Amino acid sequence: VGLIGSKLIEQIIQNAARIKDSLGIELIINGLSNSRKMLISADALDPGNYAPLLESSKTPANINQLIEKMVDYNFTHSIFIDNTASAEVPRFYERILDNNISISTPNKVAMSSEFNQFIGLKSLSKKRGVPFKYETNVAAGLPVISTLENLINSGDQISKIEAVLSGSVSYIFNTFSANGPDFSEVVKEAQTLGFTEPDPREDLSGADVRRKILILAREAGSEVESTDIEIHSILNDACLNAQSVEDFYVELGKDNQRFRSSVTSAEKENKRLRFIASFEGGKGVISLKAVPVNHPFYALSGSDNMIVLHSNRYNRTPLVVRGPGAGADVTAAGVLAEIIGIAGLI
Amino acid sequence: VGLIGSKLIEQIIQNAARIKDSLGIELIINGLSNSRKMLISADALDPGNYAPLLESSKTPANINQLIEKMVDYNFTHSIFIDNTASAEVPRFYERILDNNISISTPNKVAMSSEFNQFIGLKSLSKKRGVPFKYETNVAAGLPVISTLENLINSGDQISKIEAVLSGSVSYIFNTFSANGPDFSEVVKEAQTLGFTEPDPREDLSGADVRRKILILAREAGSEVESTDIEIHSILNDACLNAQSVEDFYVELGKDNQRFRSSVTSAEKENKRLRFIASFEGGKGVISLKAVPVNHPFYALSGSDNMIVLHSNRYNRTPLVVRGPGAGADVTAAGVLAEIIGIAGLI
Repeated sequence: VGLIGSKLIEQIIQNAARIKDSLGIELIINGLSNSRKMLISADALDPGNYAPLLESSKTPANINQLIEKMVDYNFTHSIFIDNTASAEVPRFYERILDNNISISTPNKVAMSSEFNQFIGLKSLSKKRGVPFKYETNVAAGLPVISTLENLINSGDQISKIEAVLSGSVSYIFNTFSANGPDFSEVVKEAQTLGFTEPDPREDLSGADVRRKILILAREAGSEVESTDIEIHSILNDACLNAQSVEDFYVELGKDNQRFRSSVTSAEKENKRLRFIASFEGGKGVISLKAVPVNHPFYALSGSDNMIVLHSNRYNRTPLVVRGPGAGADVTAAGVLAEIIGIAGLI
Repeated sequence: VGLIGSKLIEQIIQNAARIKDSLGIELIINGLSNSRKMLISADALDPGNYAPLLESSKTPANINQLIEKMVDYNFTHSIFIDNTASAEVPRFYERILDNNISISTPNKVAMSSEFNQFIGLKSLSKKRGVPFKYETNVAAGLPVISTLENLINSGDQISKIEAVLSGSVSYIFNTFSANGPDFSEVVKEAQTLGFTEPDPREDLSGADVRRKILILAREAGSEVESTDIEIHSILNDACLNAQSVEDFYVELGKDNQRFRSSVTSAEKENKRLRFIASFEGGKGVISLKAVPVNHPFYALSGSDNMIVLHSNRYNRTPLVVRGPGAGADVTAAGVLAEIIGIAGLI
């Protein structure tokens, strides 16, 4: 139970009575795990007391044993929720689904690994009739994957996806201006405010955006691998290869003049810099672009995400979803909405 | 079977094999009706031949008898689809749901009538465990009602809704400019192009927008009646009261100067005219506003709809959905996606 997990339990406590009353769905927690300890029981756990309960557990965390127990208890109508970013947990998805247990997860690892693994899990979910859902993989609680699913299910064909998918990079380029502080200062401030990962290169390198556009492309029906998405890096090699975050900032400081020229020339043309992922014709590109005032990405503010879908039906003007696409609160809410949706299906 | 209905059947024909193959859902049509004739059968009808089949039917259309037959045949897992704008068909929704038959409809009549009727149908659907869905009531295939549903289900509270909900009025104000043709000419052109109803006052009066914002407010959890939504009419009384469409245009022609001044003064301040519905604190207002360049509605183009949701969780920046919100093709696709969703639930 980490940041998203604890927010989710908080939201379950706050809403369980209303959900039972208005939707007839009773949410029961039978198991919990963090990276150190775990707890699983045939009886419902008290969500209001989850932290001390888990802390006092004598059982060390072991994902293999946790799933063994879930299968043993033969829980009907149960949902496995992976609120981690771990690469280990997704290795068990197949076994979970195969035992008729649904999955809801914001963890992008399984969906952004090899296409065969992604499609294998989708097929297994279909074969077993067990929901496998991951709306919060992209843009947290914003309705993106379900929207793509509805378009594809109803026979539409996606011709092009354009998206701003990194709230932290958005925040940085919404703050950076021709007459303001240096780029390295803006990045450092965003890190201090908690908008970036502890190592800001995880955001600025585009690797996370690549995972997201890859998942959207696959949802849109493309058999595509990570290598089909090209990243035009914002950072130079010296920055990318720096051994520590401290060294990274030293290298970024040496490159400030390049960022200064980019933003100055963009502003001269009344344009703004945006870190855009696009997918079209089987290929994806992620790059920093200067967009003009009439471009949909121009007016983005704060750390907003924006997803623009062009399709056979949405051809003259696209379907657009926009809003805060990160944060434990909106991600947990997205997972809770998904759990309720799954409960209606199982 | 009218415009949306025939598009829906066309999409079913095009996608039935794929839907069966990839989702395991077999779509079967057992009954059809237009305003003159109907057809219902225990055996599947041939969708590819629906028009001549219906035309050759000896049974005059009778919604009462149609539903009687549906109940008699005791179809399991069946969905009643009301693709009309009729006020008569929704009178049977209660009986349909009460007989465990799901409903999917773009028809706004039931959801925008008295609150008691709306909530009665919602309760009945819940009590019987029979889906009653109407995503296409507002903004056609755009994910608006399901998004509100997810926010509310997960415990969010909507503080404010702002929306542009009339594609035809959007088109008119996207075309009307200080130096272009008179307002009455722009309206006439929009009518000729099929962007408005045959009587453009049905769009310009705001009555249809009122139904839509009322439905959104109710989905957001407000017990609200049509009279709680105030319309600041675009049209003067002479236009609204004109006996014929021809007379309406004569009256509108006399009022062109007023529209000319509005658009000229808006453009002088670098603003654009938008027909905006908003709901906040239990009250709704629909009015023409001049919005500045940084306003989310400023950049709307064509006949786009845009829905802006402010909530407890989406408080710093709102959740926004935008795109074409009308048209038989996208509406039918929305209904088809909804049918597939219901099939997963029943």
